[in-house]
Amino acid sequence: MINLFTTEQLKSIYPKVKDFIEKRLYPIELELLFGDWSNSEQKLNDLRAESKSLGLWAPYLPEEEGGLGLSMTEFGQLSELMGTTPLGHYVFNCQAPDIGNIELMHQFASEELKTKFLKPLIDGQIRSCFAMTEPEYAGSNPVNMGTTAVLEGDEFVINGHKWFTTAADGASFCIVMAVTDTEADPYQRGSMILVPTNTTGFSIERNIPIMGDEGAGYLSHSQVRFENCRVPKAHLIGEMGSGFSLAQHRLGPGRIHHCMRWIGICERAFDMMCKRAASRELREGRKLGHQQTIQNWIAESRAEIDASRLMVLHTANKMDKEGAKAARIQISTIKFYVADVLMKVLDRAIQVHGALGITDDTLLSFWYRHERGARIYDGPDEVHKASLAKQILKEYGL
Amino acid sequence: MINLFTTEQLKSIYPKVKDFIEKRLYPIELELLFGDWSNSEQKLNDLRAESKSLGLWAPYLPEEEGGLGLSMTEFGQLSELMGTTPLGHYVFNCQAPDIGNIELMHQFASEELKTKFLKPLIDGQIRSCFAMTEPEYAGSNPVNMGTTAVLEGDEFVINGHKWFTTAADGASFCIVMAVTDTEADPYQRGSMILVPTNTTGFSIERNIPIMGDEGAGYLSHSQVRFENCRVPKAHLIGEMGSGFSLAQHRLGPGRIHHCMRWIGICERAFDMMCKRAASRELREGRKLGHQQTIQNWIAESRAEIDASRLMVLHTANKMDKEGAKAARIQISTIKFYVADVLMKVLDRAIQVHGALGITDDTLLSFWYRHERGARIYDGPDEVHKASLAKQILKEYGL
Amino acid sequence: MINLFTTEQLKSIYPKVKDFIEKRLYPIELELLFGDWSNSEQKLNDLRAESKSLGLWAPYLPEEEGGLGLSMTEFGQLSELMGTTPLGHYVFNCQAPDIGNIELMHQFASEELKTKFLKPLIDGQIRSCFAMTEPEYAGSNPVNMGTTAVLEGDEFVINGHKWFTTAADGASFCIVMAVTDTEADPYQRGSMILVPTNTTGFSIERNIPIMGDEGAGYLSHSQVRFENCRVPKAHLIGEMGSGFSLAQHRLGPGRIHHCMRWIGICERAFDMMCKRAASRELREGRKLGHQQTIQNWIAESRAEIDASRLMVLHTANKMDKEGAKAARIQISTIKFYVADVLMKVLDRAIQVHGALGITDDTLLSFWYRHERGARIYDGPDEVHKASLAKQILKEYGL
Amino acid sequence: MINLFTTEQLKSIYPKVKDFIEKRLYPIELELLFGDWSNSEQKLNDLRAESKSLGLWAPYLPEEEGGLGLSMTEFGQLSELMGTTPLGHYVFNCQAPDIGNIELMHQFASEELKTKFLKPLIDGQIRSCFAMTEPEYAGSNPVNMGTTAVLEGDEFVINGHKWFTTAADGASFCIVMAVTDTEADPYQRGSMILVPTNTTGFSIERNIPIMGDEGAGYLSHSQVRFENCRVPKAHLIGEMGSGFSLAQHRLGPGRIHHCMRWIGICERAFDMMCKRAASRELREGRKLGHQQTIQNWIAESRAEIDASRLMVLHTANKMDKEGAKAARIQISTIKFYVADVLMKVLDRAIQVHGALGITDDTLLSFWYRHERGARIYDGPDEVHKASLAKQILKEYGL
Repeated sequence: MINLFTTEQLKSIYPKVKDFIEKRLYPIELELLFGDWSNSEQKLNDLRAESKSLGLWAPYLPEEEGGLGLSMTEFGQLSELMGTTPLGHYVFNCQAPDIGNIELMHQFASEELKTKFLKPLIDGQIRSCFAMTEPEYAGSNPVNMGTTAVLEGDEFVINGHKWFTTAADGASFCIVMAVTDTEADPYQRGSMILVPTNTTGFSIERNIPIMGDEGAGYLSHSQVRFENCRVPKAHLIGEMGSGFSLAQHRLGPGRIHHCMRWIGICERAFDMMCKRAASRELREGRKLGHQQTIQNWIAESRAEIDASRLMVLHTANKMDKEGAKAARIQISTIKFYVADVLMKVLDRAIQVHGALGITDDTLLSFWYRHERGARIYDGPDEVHKASLAKQILKEYGL
Repeated sequence: MINLFTTEQLKSIYPKVKDFIEKRLYPIELELLFGDWSNSEQKLNDLRAESKSLGLWAPYLPEEEGGLGLSMTEFGQLSELMGTTPLGHYVFNCQAPDIGNIELMHQFASEELKTKFLKPLIDGQIRSCFAMTEPEYAGSNPVNMGTTAVLEGDEFVINGHKWFTTAADGASFCIVMAVTDTEADPYQRGSMILVPTNTTGFSIERNIPIMGDEGAGYLSHSQVRFENCRVPKAHLIGEMGSGFSLAQHRLGPGRIHHCMRWIGICERAFDMMCKRAASRELREGRKLGHQQTIQNWIAESRAEIDASRLMVLHTANKMDKEGAKAARIQISTIKFYVADVLMKVLDRAIQVHGALGITDDTLLSFWYRHERGARIYDGPDEVHKASLAKQILKEYGL
Repeated sequence: MINLFTTEQLKSIYPKVKDFIEKRLYPIELELLFGDWSNSEQKLNDLRAESKSLGLWAPYLPEEEGGLGLSMTEFGQLSELMGTTPLGHYVFNCQAPDIGNIELMHQFASEELKTKFLKPLIDGQIRSCFAMTEPEYAGSNPVNMGTTAVLEGDEFVINGHKWFTTAADGASFCIVMAVTDTEADPYQRGSMILVPTNTTGFSIERNIPIMGDEGAGYLSHSQVRFENCRVPKAHLIGEMGSGFSLAQHRLGPGRIHHCMRWIGICERAFDMMCKRAASRELREGRKLGHQQTIQNWIAESRAEIDASRLMVLHTANKMDKEGAKAARIQISTIKFYVADVLMKVLDRAIQVHGALGITDDTLLSFWYRHERGARIYDGPDEVHKASLAKQILKEYGL
Repeated sequence: MINLFTTEQLKSIYPKVKDFIEKRLYPIELELLFGDWSNSEQKLNDLRAESKSLGLWAPYLPEEEGGLGLSMTEFGQLSELMGTTPLGHYVFNCQAPDIGNIELMHQFASEELKTKFLKPLIDGQIRSCFAMTEPEYAGSNPVNMGTTAVLEGDEFVINGHKWFTTAADGASFCIVMAVTDTEADPYQRGSMILVPTNTTGFSIERNIPIMGDEGAGYLSHSQVRFENCRVPKAHLIGEMGSGFSLAQHRLGPGRIHHCMRWIGICERAFDMMCKRAASRELREGRKLGHQQTIQNWIAESRAEIDASRLMVLHTANKMDKEGAKAARIQISTIKFYVADVLMKVLDRAIQVHGALGITDDTLLSFWYRHERGARIYDGPDEVHKASLAKQILKEYGL
C-alpha cells in the first residue's frame, strides 16, 4: 500500500487482509502446499469461511454480488498481499482461473448460466477451469486451434485436446475455447462454451507433471480431452464466433492479476533474502549481509520491485479510469517487465540461501519452479515485446 | 507529463516549455554543442532572455524570487523536457551546478552573499561553480579531503587541489569545500566557502579532457588550484564545520535533478531509435524496425524508461510531502537505477543507428560519452547500492 | 571431441561411448529418472554390466585397476558425452560422489580399506557417499564444522549432523569429515573417516526434498545423523588432521568433473532447442527458428558453450601437465563461468519450448531444477570469484 | 602466449615484440594519440624503422616478402601484444586497413599493381585505404550499393559516395568497391578497383567526427567522394564482378585480426583495473580491491578474456589447418562474442577508475569511445548472430 494509490476503503481493509494472511496462512503454507490435497482442501475451506465472515471475500466483486466493490487499483494492493503466500488468493476466492471465469461470466453469460454456475462459483462452493491452449499449436498464436464445436440441433458436439487446463482436477465446469466456424475470418472462428466436467466425453488425461510436481486438485494443470462431448447450445458464452474477442477481455485483466501476485512473491522472497542476509553467519562477526555482492542484490531487487509496483498500479489506475483497452500497451509492458523481475529476485533469494534455497524447506524453490512459467503463460515475453514495439513503431509510420 | 502527477499549473506551462525547446533549441543544438563556445554563449543568452520574457525562467524558484514556485514533482516533468537537449536546462537557468548553488545559498548564505552573488546568479548575469572532488582522494568517501581553509584574522587562507569543478571556466565565483578543523569529528571537519574566481591564488589548471572533449566555458570541467587564496571570513556559507551537512542538503536534490534530466535524454534517444527503426531500410520492404531484436530493444527501453519516470516522480512527490530526508532511500535507489537505464537506452539507440550512431552527427555519441559519468558522479552505483542495502538490513537487525 | 585435444585412444573410444549413450540410454532416460528407483537400479545394473563388457568401464582409472588410463583431458571429452543424459556417468561408474571417493581412497586409503571398500566400489558392486556440509554452518567456510570424532581407545566416536550427503540412500559406506582436534589450527582440525552405513549410530534422517524431488537411492541427497557412531581408528583416511587438505584434493577434480558434465547438459539442451526451433510452427511457413530472438539465443549459446569447453579442456590439460594445484586458479574460473553458462542455456532452451519446457515431458525441467545448485555446491559463484580475484590482486601487491 | 598454442618461433619473437611495445610505445602512447598527427607520424616512422631493423616487421607476411612467415595462430598472439597500445599495430606494419589491402593484393592484384602499389605499402613507405560502406545504405547488406564504375574504353569512370573510409587522410591509394554491372546477380555486381588518391575526382569531404574525435592522418575515418573519377582498367583487382567474393576474402581475416587486437585491449584494461584496485585507497587500510564488487568484476573479466583468447586462437588454428572458409562459423562467433567482452571489460575498468576513468588521462576513455564501433563495424552483432544461428539451424533442416 503506497500513499500515492491509497484510498480510505483500502486503508481499512488492507491491514485486515495482511493480518489474516500472516497469522493464519504463513504458519501452514508449506503444509498446505506439499501435503495431501484433500487435507489441504478441508483446511482451506475453513479459512475461506473465516475470510468470508470477516468481510474479506472476493473484494474485487461489486458489493451487490458479495464483494467489496474495489477498484483495480485498490484490489491490486490486496492482491500483492495475497500473492505473498501460494494459496493466498484461494482463501479470498480471488484465485485464477476462477477469477477470470467469474469476470467473464459476469459480463457475458446468460442468466441461466449465471444462476446455475456463476453463483456457486462466487460463493466458493465449486471450482472451475478454462481450456484454451493446445499442445499441438503454438500458444502465442491464438487463432491456431484444433478443437471444434459443431452444432447438431440444440447441442454442441465438442472434440479436441487441451493442456495446461489449470485446476481442472476437481473443477465442476470448464469453459472451453473451440472452433465453431472453420470458414470464418481467423479472429471470428472460435467460441467459448461452458462444459460441466461430468459431461460424457470430457476427460482428464493426466495432471501434467510440471517442474517436478504432478499436483492434485486445485494445485494441478491438466491435459484434458473432449470426445464427442455434447452440451446444450445455451452453454455458449457470448455470441457465436466471439471467442477470440472474449479471450482478449479475459486476458487483459488476467495479466495484471498475475503481475500483482508476482509483486507479492517478490516482496516475500525479498523479505526472506534480507532475513537470511541479516542472520546467516559466515564467520564470527561477519554475516552474509555484510558482503557487498549480497548488498548489491538487495539494492537491485528493491529498485526493481518498487519499479514493478509503480508500473502495475499505474496501469491499474489507467484501467480504472480509461478501461482495459486503453491500457493494453501498459499491460503488455508490465507482463514481461514484472515477470523478468520476479525471476531475478527469486534467483537472488535462492543464491543468498545457499543449499537451503534449493530445498523445499522454504517457498523459494516452489516459486522458482512454478513461476518460471510466468515468462511463458498468457503470452511469452517475446510476443509482448514485439507487440509493444509494433504499437510504438506504428506511430512512427511503420 | 503523466496524468497521475499533473497539476493545473503544470498543464499550462508544460506545452510552452515543450514548444520552446523543440522549436528554438532542437534546430541549433548540435551547433551550440560542438561550435565555438563564445558564439554559443551569445546565442544562449538571447534564448535565455526569451525564455525569461515568456515567463519560463527558473520555474523551481519561488515566485517572489522570479520563479514559478513549482513543486519538485511539477518541476521534474519540465526538467525531463529540458533534458531532451543538452543545453535545455541552461536556457531556463536550471542548469547544474548553478541550480545547486542557488538552492544552497537560498537556504544558507548570508544576506550579504545573497545580494552580491546569489541575485545576479538567479538573474542569469553570472555563472558559478562548485569545487568538492579531489583527484587524490576517493570521491565516494566525502570525509577524505586535502584542501584546507585556515582562519587568519578575518580571512580564510585556502590551499588545495580540486577537479571536476564543472563550468569553472567563465564562472564568477566558486563554492569550495575545505577542511576548517582537522581535529574535529570527520563529519564536522569541512566547511563551504564562497571564492570569487578573480581572487588571487585561485587558478584553473586545465579544462580536463573528458571522453575526447576538453570543452570550454559552461561546457567544461576544470581542475582548479587554491594557493594561499584569501577570502573574507564572511564568505563562509552556513556554520563552521557544516560543510558535510550542507553537501548532503545539496546532493539529495542534485541527484533527483540528474535523474529527471536523464529521463529526458532517454526519451530523446528512444525517439531517435524509433525514427531510425521506422525509416532505415535493410532491403526492399524490410525496415530495421521489422527486426525482432530491434523490437526487443524498443520494448525493453519503453518499459525501463516508464519505470524510471514513475520512480523519479514518486520520489519527488515524497520529497514534496515529507522532505528530502524522508526520501533519502528512494533517492539512492533512483540514482543507480535510472543511470543504468540511461546507459542501456543510449547503447541500444547507438546500435540501431549503426555507423551513424558513433559519429557526432547525432547527439547519441555526445550522451554516450558524457553520461558514462552518470554511474560515477554524485556517488558511484556501488556506493548507492551498498547504502540502500545497509538501510534495509538495519531494519532486519544487522 | 575437438581436434585440438584429440588423441588416438580417444578417437577409438569416443564413438563407442557416444553410441552406447545415444542408443541405450536416451530411449529410457526419462523412465529411469522419474520411475521407481528399484526398477531403475535393476536396469542400470544391466547397462553397467554391458558397458563393462564393452571395455568402457571407469575410463579415468589406471588400466591396472580396470580403467582405461585416460588423461583428464581425454576423460573430459567422454564426461561431456556422459553428461548429456542424467544417468550417463552412473552407467560407466564415473558418477559423483563415488568417483571422488575412488580418487581419494586410491591415493590416501590404507590397503585394508582399499581391499574391503574401494575394490567393490570400483567394481560397481556397492555405492558410497560423502558427508561434509552441515546445515548449521555456511558451506562456503569449510573450517566451520560441528561434527566431531573423538578417539576412545581404538575407535572414533562420531557425533554430528550433515546434509546434502548425496546418494547416501543405499550407499554401503560414507566418508565423513569430522573435527578430530578442536584445539588445532582451523585447517588442521578435521579428518576424514570411513563409516560403513550399517554402523550403529549412523542414520538417514530424510532424503531432502530438493526442487520438488525427494528422490530415492542414488537419486537423492540425504540429511544424516551420527550419534555415538563408533568405527575403528583404522578407518581414518590419510593422517589425523588432514581432512581439510584431503578435501582440497577431492574438490579440485570434483569441480572440473562437474564442469565437464555441465557442458554435456548444455550440448543436449542446445540440441533440443535447435530441434524445437527448426520444427515448431508459429504459422504456415514460419518456424520458431525464423524468429531473430531465437536465433540470438542459439548463437549466444553456441558461443558460450564453445568457450566453456575450451576453458575446461584447457584446464584439464594444465592439470595433466602441471598438476591440479597449478590449475587451481583455472578451476575456480571454470566453476563459476560454466555454471553460469549452464543456467543461461537451460533457461533459453526452456523458453524456446514454451509450455512444454516447464513440464517433465523433457529433461529440461529436471536440469533447470537440479542444476540450479551448480552455482552453489562445491563453492558458490561468489566464493570462487572472490578467490580468483584475490589471487590476481596478490600479484599486484594487495 | 599460452602453452597450448606456442611454437619455437613464437617463443623467440614474442618477448622481443613485448619488450619493444612496453619500453618504446607505452611511455609515449598518449602523446602519440592525442598530439598533433604530423609530429606523431614522424615519431612513428622512427619506431617503424627500428622495429624493421629488429626483424619484427610485418610478421604475418611470408619471409620472401619481408615478413616472418608466421601462421595465423602465431601472429594472433603477437597481435594481442600490439593491441595493448593503440598504435601498436602501426609500428609493425600490421595495421588495418593496410594489412587487409596487403593480403588482398598479395592474392589478387596484377604484377603491375603489386610493383607499383603493394611493394611500397609492404615497405611502409605509403599508406592505403579501403572504401566500401556508404552512408545511404545499410552496411549489413553488402549487396546494396550506390557507387558505380562504368567502363569507358580503357578506363573506369567511378561515381559515388563512401564513408568510414579509415585512414584515407594521407593515404596514397584507395581500394574502392563499386558496382560494375547493375544487371548481374546481386553477388556479382561489384568489383574492387584501385584508385590513387591523387586522381582527379577523388576527394575527401571530411574526416568524420567520431565519438568526439575528428582525428587526422592515420587516426581518422573519412567521408570520400568519387566524381567522374577515372582510373585505368588495369587497376581492377581480381575479376570483374568478383568484388563481393573478394570482400569475403578480406573480411574473414579482418574480423579475426580485430578480435586479436581486442584481446590486447582487454588485457591492458584488465591490468589497469587491477593496478587501480590494488592501489586506490577508500580509507585507511581499505583498498578498492578489497571490495567484493570489484573482485567480481576482476574475476568475471579474467574468465571472459581467457575464454575469448582460447576461442580466437582455436579459430586461428582452424584457419591455419583448414582455411578461412572452414572457420567461417567460428569467425562469426568470435566477432560478436569478443566485441561484447571488450565493451564489458572496458566499462568495468572505467568504473573502477571512477572520475579518472572518464578523462583522457588514461587510454580507457579512448577505447571506450572508439571501440564502441566494434559491435558495429565488419558486421553488427545482430548480423553475425543471425548468420551463425542460420548455419546451425540449416543442419536441423530449417
